[in-house]
Amino acid sequence: MKILVLNGPNLNMLGTREVDKYGTTDLESINKELKTLAAALEVEIETFQSNSEGELVEKIQSALNNFDGIIINPAAYTHTSVAIRDAILAVNIPTVEVHLSNIYSREDFRHHSYIAPVCIGQISGFRQESYLAALRALAGYLRK
Amino acid sequence: MKILVLNGPNLNMLGTREVDKYGTTDLESINKELKTLAAALEVEIETFQSNSEGELVEKIQSALNNFDGIIINPAAYTHTSVAIRDAILAVNIPTVEVHLSNIYSREDFRHHSYIAPVCIGQISGFRQESYLAALRALAGYLRK
Amino acid sequence: MKILVLNGPNLNMLGTREVDKYGTTDLESINKELKTLAAALEVEIETFQSNSEGELVEKIQSALNNFDGIIINPAAYTHTSVAIRDAILAVNIPTVEVHLSNIYSREDFRHHSYIAPVCIGQISGFRQESYLAALRALAGYLRK
Amino acid sequence: MKILVLNGPNLNMLGTREVDKYGTTDLESINKELKTLAAALEVEIETFQSNSEGELVEKIQSALNNFDGIIINPAAYTHTSVAIRDAILAVNIPTVEVHLSNIYSREDFRHHSYIAPVCIGQISGFRQESYLAALRALAGYLRK
Amino acid sequence: MKILVLNGPNLNMLGTREVDKYGTTDLESINKELKTLAAALEVEIETFQSNSEGELVEKIQSALNNFDGIIINPAAYTHTSVAIRDAILAVNIPTVEVHLSNIYSREDFRHHSYIAPVCIGQISGFRQESYLAALRALAGYLRK
Amino acid sequence: MKILVLNGPNLNMLGTREVDKYGTTDLESINKELKTLAAALEVEIETFQSNSEGELVEKIQSALNNFDGIIINPAAYTHTSVAIRDAILAVNIPTVEVHLSNIYSREDFRHHSYIAPVCIGQISGFRQESYLAALRALAGYLRK
Amino acid sequence: MKILVLNGPNLNMLGTREVDKYGTTDLESINKELKTLAAALEVEIETFQSNSEGELVEKIQSALNNFDGIIINPAAYTHTSVAIRDAILAVNIPTVEVHLSNIYSREDFRHHSYIAPVCIGQISGFRQESYLAALRALAGYLRK
Amino acid sequence: MKILVLNGPNLNMLGTREVDKYGTTDLESINKELKTLAAALEVEIETFQSNSEGELVEKIQSALNNFDGIIINPAAYTHTSVAIRDAILAVNIPTVEVHLSNIYSREDFRHHSYIAPVCIGQISGFRQESYLAALRALAGYLRK
Amino acid sequence: MKILVLNGPNLNMLGTREVDKYGTTDLESINKELKTLAAALEVEIETFQSNSEGELVEKIQSALNNFDGIIINPAAYTHTSVAIRDAILAVNIPTVEVHLSNIYSREDFRHHSYIAPVCIGQISGFRQESYLAALRALAGYLRK
Amino acid sequence: MKILVLNGPNLNMLGTREVDKYGTTDLESINKELKTLAAALEVEIETFQSNSEGELVEKIQSALNNFDGIIINPAAYTHTSVAIRDAILAVNIPTVEVHLSNIYSREDFRHHSYIAPVCIGQISGFRQESYLAALRALAGYLRK
Amino acid sequence: MKILVLNGPNLNMLGTREVDKYGTTDLESINKELKTLAAALEVEIETFQSNSEGELVEKIQSALNNFDGIIINPAAYTHTSVAIRDAILAVNIPTVEVHLSNIYSREDFRHHSYIAPVCIGQISGFRQESYLAALRALAGYLRK
Amino acid sequence: MKILVLNGPNLNMLGTREVDKYGTTDLESINKELKTLAAALEVEIETFQSNSEGELVEKIQSALNNFDGIIINPAAYTHTSVAIRDAILAVNIPTVEVHLSNIYSREDFRHHSYIAPVCIGQISGFRQESYLAALRALAGYLRK
Repeated sequence: MKILVLNGPNLNMLGTREVDKYGTTDLESINKELKTLAAALEVEIETFQSNSEGELVEKIQSALNNFDGIIINPAAYTHTSVAIRDAILAVNIPTVEVHLSNIYSREDFRHHSYIAPVCIGQISGFRQESYLAALRALAGYLRK
Repeated sequence: MKILVLNGPNLNMLGTREVDKYGTTDLESINKELKTLAAALEVEIETFQSNSEGELVEKIQSALNNFDGIIINPAAYTHTSVAIRDAILAVNIPTVEVHLSNIYSREDFRHHSYIAPVCIGQISGFRQESYLAALRALAGYLRK
Repeated sequence: MKILVLNGPNLNMLGTREVDKYGTTDLESINKELKTLAAALEVEIETFQSNSEGELVEKIQSALNNFDGIIINPAAYTHTSVAIRDAILAVNIPTVEVHLSNIYSREDFRHHSYIAPVCIGQISGFRQESYLAALRALAGYLRK
Repeated sequence: MKILVLNGPNLNMLGTREVDKYGTTDLESINKELKTLAAALEVEIETFQSNSEGELVEKIQSALNNFDGIIINPAAYTHTSVAIRDAILAVNIPTVEVHLSNIYSREDFRHHSYIAPVCIGQISGFRQESYLAALRALAGYLRK
Repeated sequence: MKILVLNGPNLNMLGTREVDKYGTTDLESINKELKTLAAALEVEIETFQSNSEGELVEKIQSALNNFDGIIINPAAYTHTSVAIRDAILAVNIPTVEVHLSNIYSREDFRHHSYIAPVCIGQISGFRQESYLAALRALAGYLRK
Repeated sequence: MKILVLNGPNLNMLGTREVDKYGTTDLESINKELKTLAAALEVEIETFQSNSEGELVEKIQSALNNFDGIIINPAAYTHTSVAIRDAILAVNIPTVEVHLSNIYSREDFRHHSYIAPVCIGQISGFRQESYLAALRALAGYLRK
Repeated sequence: MKILVLNGPNLNMLGTREVDKYGTTDLESINKELKTLAAALEVEIETFQSNSEGELVEKIQSALNNFDGIIINPAAYTHTSVAIRDAILAVNIPTVEVHLSNIYSREDFRHHSYIAPVCIGQISGFRQESYLAALRALAGYLRK
Repeated sequence: MKILVLNGPNLNMLGTREVDKYGTTDLESINKELKTLAAALEVEIETFQSNSEGELVEKIQSALNNFDGIIINPAAYTHTSVAIRDAILAVNIPTVEVHLSNIYSREDFRHHSYIAPVCIGQISGFRQESYLAALRALAGYLRK
Repeated sequence: MKILVLNGPNLNMLGTREVDKYGTTDLESINKELKTLAAALEVEIETFQSNSEGELVEKIQSALNNFDGIIINPAAYTHTSVAIRDAILAVNIPTVEVHLSNIYSREDFRHHSYIAPVCIGQISGFRQESYLAALRALAGYLRK
Repeated sequence: MKILVLNGPNLNMLGTREVDKYGTTDLESINKELKTLAAALEVEIETFQSNSEGELVEKIQSALNNFDGIIINPAAYTHTSVAIRDAILAVNIPTVEVHLSNIYSREDFRHHSYIAPVCIGQISGFRQESYLAALRALAGYLRK
Repeated sequence: MKILVLNGPNLNMLGTREVDKYGTTDLESINKELKTLAAALEVEIETFQSNSEGELVEKIQSALNNFDGIIINPAAYTHTSVAIRDAILAVNIPTVEVHLSNIYSREDFRHHSYIAPVCIGQISGFRQESYLAALRALAGYLRK
Repeated sequence: MKILVLNGPNLNMLGTREVDKYGTTDLESINKELKTLAAALEVEIETFQSNSEGELVEKIQSALNNFDGIIINPAAYTHTSVAIRDAILAVNIPTVEVHLSNIYSREDFRHHSYIAPVCIGQISGFRQESYLAALRALAGYLRK
């Protein structure tokens, strides 16, 4: 079982960026925690971060026939990208949307997600634990 | 560490109700799975279901000084209850909102939650796994 | 054939309440008229009124395997209760929504019903005759 | 007692048109059923169908001093015709709005009726039974 | 002259709940202050708190022929309860809406009240003094 | 100078229709008054009423090269007819919109006119005097 | 019979201001034309222009017991002044709203008038002729 | 293969009407071009224009069992006619919507079509070429 | 302790203006009642009425360092004046908003107040008693 | 004559992606069909696909002085890209928008196009035939 | 070259008013800085502040033929005054809108300006530097 | 002091693109003028243009620890990019938004900026002078 973990714009700044909202853990640490958990779950994962909508679209496309599931934190593109939504529809791979912060306690425009309706589910608000919970949930889902 | 697990209206019908949306597992089974996990996490849990908004409000109030965290699936009251939101604000106990189905791929009125903005986070779409993920995430949050 | 007749909040005040809008007939009289008609139609009916959203939800749940159809005047909960809508979805019993007054000639917020989309049909504006028409229509529907 | 039964656009296609929504009964059959019931109720009815908004307006106008009540299925004009609304206001004859299908479980634009607020009441969702129920309710209303 | 004082959901938590918004005075203290003032005004009062919409509806219904006026702090139900609005309409007893906090400087959804349009008036923002002002104003109104 | 005076749906009912809103003067009397004034202004007028949107469109089309100005009371079609708007644009003849009643003190949907933006001006609220004022204003406009 | 003619902000600039929209006639000329017509109609008129909302309110107040009717071009205050609306309601004198330009073919915010719903009628689009038509219509109205 | 070509209100004015928007070609010329193309494609076409919504509805109804496809330029009725939409649904014949002008660069109300969602596709902006393109596309579609 | 009592546009017309909404008491009588109460509360008050938004702004500005509290009935400016809101923010003096009538049972545009969010609280619906209640509440607030 | 054919995000997945919506033909096949038609029309075409908004913007910019027309299927960027709209405005080259599916029978957010208002026209719903029709229409347009 | 610098309501309170938003510099200091800069730019300036919408309108009117440009900080009237907008249109003098604070990071109603669309440009957020930048930009604009 | 000057999509087309809106000056000339001014202000600047949202995000990220301030003309991304907003929040460097044209006198969708609320201020409408004013204002801000 192979799972692709995607991170959207500005998540490469984690740990230095708005630490009150996102915590001091950087993306590399999250990826390490994910790999440890993946090993325990006997899942293979690949991680990828991009600030470019187009690159994220292409990474999703490349998952076709190569990955069994996708975990995506679309960050800002959550609220503006129909292209990422269409890419997920195109590859038709079970996908989970995650957010570090609780997007429902922030600005109004962050309450709407173009991505969530085409996912299995959404996890938001638990900082890095959002990713770990997503990995467990997606692995469980794929095994059924 | 004690965690209160609350279930809102019609969740007592789980397993017979709209099985394509909610699956065939009933609430008792979910509660058993939660207790097994709770034991493993060294957390004490209490579960409660009610179809009454007022009873849910009072159960939340009773958690004050008795519980360290709350997991709530407010079901239909997610979209209509300011009273439950205010109860969570009143007791000021870390709370996680869960949903069995992905509320973002359903009717428009199910996309808005009065509860989410006063919670730590929200998990939706993974059927009973939503609860298990919430328990792990909340226990982790409370330990920090 | 068994039909459950449900009445929502403040309908126990019928006959004294806003008589220009609802007439001087009380709920007991309506229930009597319904029973007379039911006998003629060879249908068994049970009537129930509650001011509590939770109790109405539970009465609907209890109809599962016990009733063939439901007639409901959700009154104020027409416009605010997702929980009653979900209960009707959960039991999946053919349901008819009735109103004494014409809700479309009243305040704007009374033009929207959370209940109607999950019913067979809706009858509004004929005072107690709304119930009688609903009983005839529902019995006819169930016989087909 | 004389009642005018009006049918709006495309109802002449009943029985062939979208049979899953409207059933296989054609308009002639409905009119026959109505006439049988009318005889039983000692009411005289006249039926009329038109695809033209203007003709429907004029038929309503012609009811002045000739009919005691109107039953109208305005079909598509329900949602777009102020002219029919004004005609009903102009003749000031008690009117009932009927629909074959449940307009509240269809597209959003079908949830709004220009006609309902100027009627006694509305009946929707019971296919041909909607008309029969309307005839009984209107006859009862006019007798009081 | 008899006046019923009603308190809605979570007001039983007053004094411990969000003290920056609602102050440290508990409901019992407010009720005592109200009784002292009532005595001075030669008015009899009864106080009642409930977290249940249905119970509040029924308490209002029970006021018919027993009370001359109602003071209500509907709390969260201010914004969501048509049933309480209808109960006030049903008993047709002069009613005053009160709020401890200034609801107009809080979240947008708290700016709308289903209750205010069917009341004599509304007083918000003066903590317990809102109740005392309401009692004086209502007593004065009823004496005219 | 020739002016076409058009009247929309239900205006043939004037004098009998909703006399509190529209007065007891019938359309024939208004037309007579208009003809008297036209003679005084040395203008030729033709009057036309129809309940059909299509017929009104065609009458406007026929004005091309035959009339110098149009006075139209589109009645209900004011709020729903893009076709009449387009017909006025197509013939490009100076047009004045008139209303017997003050449409701005009636239902919200009557505040919007598809016709007004393509007219020289609009006169509403003066009963038959609206027409006479329009004739004077249009004649004056055309003479300049 | 005495009629007060009021002009709102920037109408003192007429003749120099946006001549394509408002024409080259200045306010003095319009007032002269109005006086000539008034004499013919045996009506006494007083004219007043102000750029101040408060002064317009006070001029309307001063009309109480002194004038039989009001003609007002509220200009920009049409769209923003509840105070002028309330002043007209307070004096309860028959009022006509006029506009030089067709406000329905301009910016969206100019389509809404706070004033029109409390007037007898509205005339817009005929430049100075709007005033003359208003004077004739108002005089006719007052004579009835 | 037989295709019905329908034209809505004011299209009989083509060539004289708003030539900057619609060009100087009249409807007869377009029909001729269509017939030439139809011959080349071995398709039989019939053309029909009406200013009446009802007549267009009936022409569509009459296509049942007589035509294999419909090309319609609903003109103004695009934005206001649910009746034409329902007629297309009723006959269930593949339909293409065409427009001479680009409706998306005009007034906001022209951006919404009641017709497009029940068609195969829509072509707008190419003047008479819109029709020719539609004929080719529809013929191709029907041949598959 | 000094309190400034401000009255907005048209309140100088009280007693003659719309007596069904506002009663027959004039502003002078209200001011007298206020002064009597102020004396009893050992508070000094100054009263001021203006129809001008600018004058109200300046009176509020002049309160800086001269008054301890403000009672304001902004009347029509409640719904349209950001300038008065900003003046209250600028002087930062505790302010109470009052209304004679219940603004929540009137037109929709009267339900929104620019002033309320920057006040301590709001009292509406008790005619002159609104002012007296405000004086007591504000004096109590300032003493704490 | 040179025409640039642009394809937006996920169109490189054609043939494998959501085949019920987009068909089984891949982009290469469409390009071949286009080239065959181009040759027949004596037009030179260049095709380009990108998943990146920025690359599409730059390709449009590069068309300046190099191409006579543009055909673009902006796919997901139709609904979200002001940058592509501005690029088309910047080069001011006649552009046609195409869609494989009928965007008006899909989700609401797909009904709005930022691109259409700056194009000559739009063709949607005919799968690959949309492109062929666009090429014919654009070539015809450019020849005039 | 002469430039008029206008300041709207409450700006006379600068330096004492909400110093966290507007800083401690008073209006006199800003005017001095402006005069120093004006001298350097060889521009003559006149400054004016008013809390009255009407006075601001008149000051703008008086600029006709006397000033070459206007700098205006409309303060609260930015969001509510059509009259000031119309005055700027009437005199047709190049105008720049300035704000001390960043109006886009404040309440929603402050994001809309009636004034900006009729200005050359807008500068907001730089406290007194907003004025200096406006003076330089306007002088530069007028010199071209 | 180092300042980064960023330009968004299509600004590389300046001088050739829509010259009536943006002028004939190209981006290189603006950059030269900025460098001259920067030298005079003893500020170091770096300029960068990109048509890619992702590249702009990354350039902003790279400013962390390298630049003291940012001037950005986000062009089309002003209205659609949450990613650029988040990048500015992430680096937390004082930023100024500039626009060549007055975005408030253009299409409605250009009135909203995702960027402005996270900037110090915004300058729009002065063509290249917008940049120069921004540089002076930002340098002044940073020196304080």
